Amino acid sequence: MATIKEVAKEAGVSVATVSRVINNNGYVNDETRKRVEKAIQSLNYQPNDVARSLFKKQSQTIGLMVPDIMNPFFPELARAVEDTASKLGYTVILCNTDEDIEKEQMYLNTLLRKYIDGLIVVSNTLTAKQIKRLNVPVVTVDREISKDIPTIIVQNTAGGRMATRYLKEIGCERIAHLKGPDHIRNANERCCGYKEEVHNEPWFKEDYIIEGHYEMESAIKATYQLLTRYPDIDGIFAGNDIMAIGAIKAVHQLGKKVPDDVAVIGFDGIALAKAATPELTTIAQPIYEMGRMAANLLIDLIEKKKIEKTFYNLEVELVKRQST
Amino acid sequence: MATIKEVAKEAGVSVATVSRVINNNGYVNDETRKRVEKAIQSLNYQPNDVARSLFKKQSQTIGLMVPDIMNPFFPELARAVEDTASKLGYTVILCNTDEDIEKEQMYLNTLLRKYIDGLIVVSNTLTAKQIKRLNVPVVTVDREISKDIPTIIVQNTAGGRMATRYLKEIGCERIAHLKGPDHIRNANERCCGYKEEVHNEPWFKEDYIIEGHYEMESAIKATYQLLTRYPDIDGIFAGNDIMAIGAIKAVHQLGKKVPDDVAVIGFDGIALAKAATPELTTIAQPIYEMGRMAANLLIDLIEKKKIEKTFYNLEVELVKRQST
Repeated sequence: MATIKEVAKEAGVSVATVSRVINNNGYVNDETRKRVEKAIQSLNYQPNDVARSLFKKQSQTIGLMVPDIMNPFFPELARAVEDTASKLGYTVILCNTDEDIEKEQMYLNTLLRKYIDGLIVVSNTLTAKQIKRLNVPVVTVDREISKDIPTIIVQNTAGGRMATRYLKEIGCERIAHLKGPDHIRNANERCCGYKEEVHNEPWFKEDYIIEGHYEMESAIKATYQLLTRYPDIDGIFAGNDIMAIGAIKAVHQLGKKVPDDVAVIGFDGIALAKAATPELTTIAQPIYEMGRMAANLLIDLIEKKKIEKTFYNLEVELVKRQST
Repeated sequence: MATIKEVAKEAGVSVATVSRVINNNGYVNDETRKRVEKAIQSLNYQPNDVARSLFKKQSQTIGLMVPDIMNPFFPELARAVEDTASKLGYTVILCNTDEDIEKEQMYLNTLLRKYIDGLIVVSNTLTAKQIKRLNVPVVTVDREISKDIPTIIVQNTAGGRMATRYLKEIGCERIAHLKGPDHIRNANERCCGYKEEVHNEPWFKEDYIIEGHYEMESAIKATYQLLTRYPDIDGIFAGNDIMAIGAIKAVHQLGKKVPDDVAVIGFDGIALAKAATPELTTIAQPIYEMGRMAANLLIDLIEKKKIEKTFYNLEVELVKRQST
């Protein structure tokens, strides 16, 4: 890439003159300005963001830490963050942490050394203390870490209730819950919503709640075992869409039909849910909207704009398809 | 974050001494070194990558330009690039271009201003000339732009032949092809492979090749029309997995069964293919491996290591599942 010196030489002026033209301060006569602009164009000179970063200790870059971009929830979130940031002049550094605390710490150090301006985080392991030590604005998404850290989440408990109530409405009389991991707060909240709807039912057993690790293979196994032990089960609320797709596979493996013998509902509203056969009924989160809001809020914080609200608990929505 | 000045003050030494300790050059006595190291630790001082970038015109950052991270092929590629880069001390800036030439140019300018060290690109619109003007190493993936730009692709034509031949082997006698967009080279190559296998068959018609735009909705529509017009078709080779899932849906909509009435095979080997019902037979690309190789090759180029080969045309693999 061309340097400012080369531009000055090409235009036959001093570096200071080129700088005045670029920064549009101080007097430069019209003919000289045109010569400099022509040189900038012909050499494809780009003013130097890095020097500006060093001076301002800002980089017009934000970090996005997700557990794993291959989990189908996160590409849509990442896309929304990147679309929004890019419109506002920021680039996005993507970090996959696998929620491994050492990896997270390593990324935090790296990002700070690069003077990132702010960070969007999805994590169950980072503590409020660690985040506050960063000295750059942080927005947490999907998982709440602390009430005083800007956060975008959804109403998980209400969503769990909504899913379970819908299964009851369509006539299910034995409803099981495929639960996400214990250490993830939204998994416990969705499970709470389920319990609130069923704990007074005469048929309810604690055994109807089984762990599926938010992932397909273990959901298949867990559902297969559950339905073998309790063949009366006619409805399953899965804590995320991937587990719901696994549950449908297990129902098929047992020679039963979805939704005729067992109705299945998921949670998330990922694109995959529509690609499933039968297409998956689900409690949809506004995933893109969450990413967009997180990026807007973070950049407002970075640019010290007036912020009205830093905690958003968004509504979820029942999307009826073929699996119920 | 602490500055080098604060470290110097804390340790009771000059900034120059701290700098000598950090960069490990020049004499510092043991006791002083320990004092400086203790101050660095207690203040959580991070040496300044940005200053180093300005000096070396390097940033330990690479760019990754993909059309859309929400297309299920790219999260796995992005994950591989990021895993590999991170192990080698580089961070990754993610850019979604929608293959829009203006967005691509905007990103190129932004990335160059940030002194990125190199770029991994998936694009059909960028020209070899544009890429060479960048003056940083570039590796293209999935789509070949020019023979003299480092490239990682797969054997698309051979894969197309493999898919079609397999449908013939299992007894299909009227095989159609759901083709990707004309402007994407790999779509045309996969179609070539199909044609090579079928053009001598007495039943072959050009009408058996239909466009599905590499996307589910249009694949459903195209397949539905095709099977309505030619109910004899008993095998479909789809140019990617998403279209294959769409084709399966269309077969079901017509009251037919997969694979009993119509066998369906895809191309890509995305995780989604296993989540489909029936699970999708496909020609699998080594997606993670492609990302890993691209990142390794790019960083070798950045670090001016000896490179043996800059053009990789990788093998694909037939993965048999339930849809055939």
